[in-house]
Amino acid sequence: MDALIKEMEAICGKENVQYSNAAKLAYSYDATANFQHLPDVIVSPRNTEEVAEVVKVCAKYKTPIIPRGSGTNLAAGTTPTSGGVVVLFKHMNKIIELDEENLTITVQPGVITKTIIDYVEENHLFYPPDPSSLKISTIGGNISENSGGLRGLKYGVTKDYVLGLEAVLPNGEIIRTGGKLAKDVAGYDLTSLLVGSEGTLAIVTEATLKLIPKPPYKETILAMFKTLEQAAQTVSAILAAKIIPTTLEFMDQGTLQVIEDYKQIGLPTDCEAVLLIEQDGVEEAVKRDMDVIYQVCQDFSAINVQKAETEEEAEDLRSGRRDALSALARLRPTTILEDATVPRSAIAPMVREITRIAEKYDVTIRTFGHAGDGNLHPTCLTDLRDKEEMERVEQALAEIFDAAIQLGGTITGEHGVGEMKAPYLEWKLGKAGIGLMKSIKQSIDPDNIMNPGKMFAKSTKERLVMSNV
Amino acid sequence: MDALIKEMEAICGKENVQYSNAAKLAYSYDATANFQHLPDVIVSPRNTEEVAEVVKVCAKYKTPIIPRGSGTNLAAGTTPTSGGVVVLFKHMNKIIELDEENLTITVQPGVITKTIIDYVEENHLFYPPDPSSLKISTIGGNISENSGGLRGLKYGVTKDYVLGLEAVLPNGEIIRTGGKLAKDVAGYDLTSLLVGSEGTLAIVTEATLKLIPKPPYKETILAMFKTLEQAAQTVSAILAAKIIPTTLEFMDQGTLQVIEDYKQIGLPTDCEAVLLIEQDGVEEAVKRDMDVIYQVCQDFSAINVQKAETEEEAEDLRSGRRDALSALARLRPTTILEDATVPRSAIAPMVREITRIAEKYDVTIRTFGHAGDGNLHPTCLTDLRDKEEMERVEQALAEIFDAAIQLGGTITGEHGVGEMKAPYLEWKLGKAGIGLMKSIKQSIDPDNIMNPGKMFAKSTKERLVMSNV
Repeated sequence: MDALIKEMEAICGKENVQYSNAAKLAYSYDATANFQHLPDVIVSPRNTEEVAEVVKVCAKYKTPIIPRGSGTNLAAGTTPTSGGVVVLFKHMNKIIELDEENLTITVQPGVITKTIIDYVEENHLFYPPDPSSLKISTIGGNISENSGGLRGLKYGVTKDYVLGLEAVLPNGEIIRTGGKLAKDVAGYDLTSLLVGSEGTLAIVTEATLKLIPKPPYKETILAMFKTLEQAAQTVSAILAAKIIPTTLEFMDQGTLQVIEDYKQIGLPTDCEAVLLIEQDGVEEAVKRDMDVIYQVCQDFSAINVQKAETEEEAEDLRSGRRDALSALARLRPTTILEDATVPRSAIAPMVREITRIAEKYDVTIRTFGHAGDGNLHPTCLTDLRDKEEMERVEQALAEIFDAAIQLGGTITGEHGVGEMKAPYLEWKLGKAGIGLMKSIKQSIDPDNIMNPGKMFAKSTKERLVMSNV
Repeated sequence: MDALIKEMEAICGKENVQYSNAAKLAYSYDATANFQHLPDVIVSPRNTEEVAEVVKVCAKYKTPIIPRGSGTNLAAGTTPTSGGVVVLFKHMNKIIELDEENLTITVQPGVITKTIIDYVEENHLFYPPDPSSLKISTIGGNISENSGGLRGLKYGVTKDYVLGLEAVLPNGEIIRTGGKLAKDVAGYDLTSLLVGSEGTLAIVTEATLKLIPKPPYKETILAMFKTLEQAAQTVSAILAAKIIPTTLEFMDQGTLQVIEDYKQIGLPTDCEAVLLIEQDGVEEAVKRDMDVIYQVCQDFSAINVQKAETEEEAEDLRSGRRDALSALARLRPTTILEDATVPRSAIAPMVREITRIAEKYDVTIRTFGHAGDGNLHPTCLTDLRDKEEMERVEQALAEIFDAAIQLGGTITGEHGVGEMKAPYLEWKLGKAGIGLMKSIKQSIDPDNIMNPGKMFAKSTKERLVMSNV
């Protein structure tokens, strides 16, 4: 490792290579509970060429490389599972170009997501993907994980906005995919293959993102329901009315109670579920959609529908939902945020399943998430130090994954597989699907140096036999 | 080959296996001039299991498999370049399910694109991708080629609407990717990898497509310009005004003249360029956008702006553009439709380049295409039997590809690489990019039985040195 460190210092400069115990500890974990491993060294290259040189050295020594943004990952995607070199992008954090004629922005991986969103909005343009971590997450991390967000229902997720990439392959070669092009079918869609590949195939060093015109008008409401089912039925009925809202978020009573305790913004806490609903676009169309949505809420016996009269009120409602995780994290020592996703028509049965499973294993689960996308975040509040409880938590989460798959869903909607969900991936993909992915990984990264231990597990968890779904 | 044919007959039934000379001839070519090769046998499996069995037999004999929809490909993507087994989907042509709650439709590969479009519109839903061939092309072909169309500017291309696939791998294994899910990050994006892979990785046997609500209102105009530059500047100015029209199509004078001769629909023929512009959405927004678009056309000295007052008039204007290829094909014995694509800001320089190159090589090129996407279709009218002219045509087309790449573009926007453009692919991707694609192909299809000779060429054309772009 000493020889490798010397070579890293020669490439990036001594000041950009860290290997103190404190530094190693700081980069030994991400936002996922119960996953931790020390890296050997942390390097901060200053440009693409330095990234390529760093990769070549790692390839020579067959040392793992773990690219890392802000470490907000929730599936142990950036833990240095087998040690190795953590690569940071603190020097590669520039907005390179806003191209107003082609409606694109070109950025380095270390730019904070919110910096991009704010910058383009100042220019009356719009970058829709808005993961809840947007104030601290980097665009490089968003691309690696194909991050979603609250606006995903109407506008899609990160992959829908990545037009082109510059990336360093495991052999140190630099490739460019796509471009400022609305259409490009020259060969396989490498851009889409790299987006969401969790750093297991290449290191993204530059991205060209698609922008759209900023919607001129927006309305925000909060609708409260006596029962979970009424809220779920409202979601289905809005979409069946051929309306696609920008945001259609769900929070259960437990989540609401905690957010209100945390932020005191006047959220209702005496109903089983609320929906946060937003629509944007031209004013007439938004008003018309919101009239229909209001009526649908009434049809399903909403207790109350509260409309934000000002942008400040809307931001309060939104930030309540956005801070749900932080608020929940205050309740118990350990928070495990899950990401099971189902077809949107299966939201009600999935919420019922989660409730049943929490009771069965006697664990505390609060649920919120992107109801319009079928993307729920059942959040387990527990304590790592209690081994017996943690076993029940693990069994409950496995049963939640199984339920999601049986309802036509997936084990992860927007957080990624990482190390945490790797043992469950085969449940979704089957042996042939995972075999295909492994053969792609093997062909691109034969020495398995790119973020090893993520996505592909040594062994698959035994599948539960469920009779009740 | 006799043994293989016997096995095919056992799998699909004698009536679904053809090997007469007439049948071989019928499937020896597609819509691409100058590419032809006889297959050995043509089979029509009746379901996914039969496709899997057919593939296993081909794998055993290491015989090429060429999946084929309606053969409308324009890059020699479905010619049986090395003989082998052509697979038809005439029995696998069912709409399996329209799911109005999840806004999806699940179809077999042999369904005609227009059948899907019409079917969902009857249910007030919308499937936007509309390649010009939609009346005869199959959805399987659209998926293999990632087809675009006239509505691509606002709504994207086929890949933006494929949520999940069932496909048969080269070893006969059946995989399922994605699902009725708005979000899914469980592993690599195999769906996007297969879309546009031109039958070189797997055979798609079922697809789940995303639908959106049908826009309630639409307006169509035709704007005529004295010069090409004025039309190109108008395109840029509309987008700079933060308006994304549904359709923003360009036709040059030569194309207009031929369409008018062919259809007599009153198209203007005394101007250098026209733009066909459509916007859809809610009525107020469409009217407001169209007012701005009308003003932009005036600002750039449009000679005339004609508005379709009825849906029939609009359909006439649209069908003029849609039939451009058929109309042009009447002029000379051979029609070569190209597909060079540039960033939309480079439309004007690209059109100038095409004009210059046509004059330099003394060949006839008429240009139309999707101006808003930067996706032009320079169409060369020539005669295959004239070897000397064909050499000049080939040089002209190569120089057009080179010009597109130098302007930040690509060699194909929506038609695919096929056999025709394979020798140019490295110009766009570089050695590292094409090496990466080859390693993916090799890992999935080690015996190279899936549509061999497409996408990857034995050798790359020598690049022209251009000083004038």
